[in-house]
Amino acid sequence: MTHSMSAQAPKTKNRMDQQANPPHYLALSGGVGGAKLALGLSHVLPAEQLTIVANTGDDFEHLGLTICPDIDTLLYTLADLNNKALGWGRQDESWHFMETLKALGAETWFQLGDRDLALHTIRTQKLAHGETLSQVTHFLCQQLGISPNVTPMTDDPLKTIVKTTQGPLAFQHYFVREQCRPAITGIEFEGRHSAQPSAAFLHALHHPHLKAVIICPSNPFVSIAPIRSLPGIEERLNARPVIAVSPIIAGKALKGPAAKMMQELKLPCTALGVCEYYGSLLDGFVLDEADAHYSQEMEAHGVRTLTTQTVMRTLNDRIQLAEEVITWINTIWP
Amino acid sequence: MTHSMSAQAPKTKNRMDQQANPPHYLALSGGVGGAKLALGLSHVLPAEQLTIVANTGDDFEHLGLTICPDIDTLLYTLADLNNKALGWGRQDESWHFMETLKALGAETWFQLGDRDLALHTIRTQKLAHGETLSQVTHFLCQQLGISPNVTPMTDDPLKTIVKTTQGPLAFQHYFVREQCRPAITGIEFEGRHSAQPSAAFLHALHHPHLKAVIICPSNPFVSIAPIRSLPGIEERLNARPVIAVSPIIAGKALKGPAAKMMQELKLPCTALGVCEYYGSLLDGFVLDEADAHYSQEMEAHGVRTLTTQTVMRTLNDRIQLAEEVITWINTIWP
Repeated sequence: MTHSMSAQAPKTKNRMDQQANPPHYLALSGGVGGAKLALGLSHVLPAEQLTIVANTGDDFEHLGLTICPDIDTLLYTLADLNNKALGWGRQDESWHFMETLKALGAETWFQLGDRDLALHTIRTQKLAHGETLSQVTHFLCQQLGISPNVTPMTDDPLKTIVKTTQGPLAFQHYFVREQCRPAITGIEFEGRHSAQPSAAFLHALHHPHLKAVIICPSNPFVSIAPIRSLPGIEERLNARPVIAVSPIIAGKALKGPAAKMMQELKLPCTALGVCEYYGSLLDGFVLDEADAHYSQEMEAHGVRTLTTQTVMRTLNDRIQLAEEVITWINTIWP
Repeated sequence: MTHSMSAQAPKTKNRMDQQANPPHYLALSGGVGGAKLALGLSHVLPAEQLTIVANTGDDFEHLGLTICPDIDTLLYTLADLNNKALGWGRQDESWHFMETLKALGAETWFQLGDRDLALHTIRTQKLAHGETLSQVTHFLCQQLGISPNVTPMTDDPLKTIVKTTQGPLAFQHYFVREQCRPAITGIEFEGRHSAQPSAAFLHALHHPHLKAVIICPSNPFVSIAPIRSLPGIEERLNARPVIAVSPIIAGKALKGPAAKMMQELKLPCTALGVCEYYGSLLDGFVLDEADAHYSQEMEAHGVRTLTTQTVMRTLNDRIQLAEEVITWINTIWP
């Protein structure tokens, strides 16, 4: 009986270890594309095993409001409040504020829906009262019933500046107001030397059971690069298992200006181009079946690959891709 | 022929004098009741002969926005955009911002419609960029097609504080959040020693052809008193012909807490009580037919009276009362 007990004990302990030390996953995300995979991951992983870090390089002040486009897209997507018809903003949206703004002769290049405004107003208020962006984001997650930890990459100002043939532009001015028309000559991250990574970001990076960092299918140059530009982050990422899901499929970006940027920055606009751009940061790369032919070259450079269907049209697509990615990660690093 | 020409010359000159020196009228107004008469006056007088000074003692910061309830009511009323069903706010209003604010756990005691928000946002933005409240109000008038000069009483902070048995309350907190429930023990105007009357207010008061100051049927204690409390204003008003239109009819205020305030401040809640409260400031008083019996006592105290139908239900009522008031003023001071 004693023997029987001692024989069982290690088993129980192992199970307890497994429960007490569950693996952790850290997702880096920009807006729409990244949020789709983040939503999939949130369905596949228990909330406490997932940290989602949002790019804040796009954040800007508009009409007195602090607007955080990537955080907002993540929150709306994770709360299932995203506007599926528009592909941005909130569902069931109305535009009476914008209509009136226009009638009163104000700037209307950035569309703010009546419901969406509430979120920006609350955030701006709380920031004005001294809360950090991390605290505000946590509050909004709670109010929206979002379980995983969604955190800004930093609580400090870091501003993505797109250098163009028409001069430097803040990201939303380039992306929304100018509709990505000016040709890009470079990208800068203003404030990157003084901005500190958020506590939750660092906590996840230093998590003793961090299984992998997952770079979501977001724009490498304006969604992921700002995160990497924060002091100490690149070194920390290099010390961790990192995989990326390609934002380029068959030479095209499903959304946003990534493909146009790659052309203008003279980078080959392919999944391979993305993989090479991330370079030694990557341990693994998830590419679409349409790009299967690049797999061999990536593997030859020491990057493990998962070739699968990466276009996420439905919720089921998002969950399935997330499941495959997590399973694959656990195969590489059991 | 020479004689004939010289005989005509003075006539022409007189007509030109009349045109070159038209009489000017200065209306002092709070919100709803005052705005009704202001609208009537705007129909009766050429725009350049009317200055409307708005109380700003109710102004407050809410959700990061500078809200000026009396200016807003005047603007919406004069632009025929006021919500006739509600009696406040804008017409064709929607409430998606408020609904979402509530769902996200924010303060919702002050109702801000989706369209109304645009006006507050523009004002807050312009103030943040260094424009004065006068400049912003002028801009909004232009955008809304409002011709008469609507001006805040001051560009400086002056805050109406209602002292109650439950402690001091900013006016909108007393009026909207607490719905006038706490009993009033006094009223203070925070900042009244340092706030300067606006340039347009002073300009109208010093107008060489100022015919009269018209105190609109607004709350004497919280709409007109803040205007009078500004440095130098009471003396200037005393030096000018001033008439008031009673906000109390048959012992009742048509709107707002004036009657309740009079009771709590131990003032007789009658048109006569209002007339006595204004005291030596007044040269004339317009009272409703329902209060005709007070006329004799007012006249005995040297206040001329106009007894007429003062309830303004329709646009026609507003125009008719304004017409009668202007005609009466021109009879008193030809």
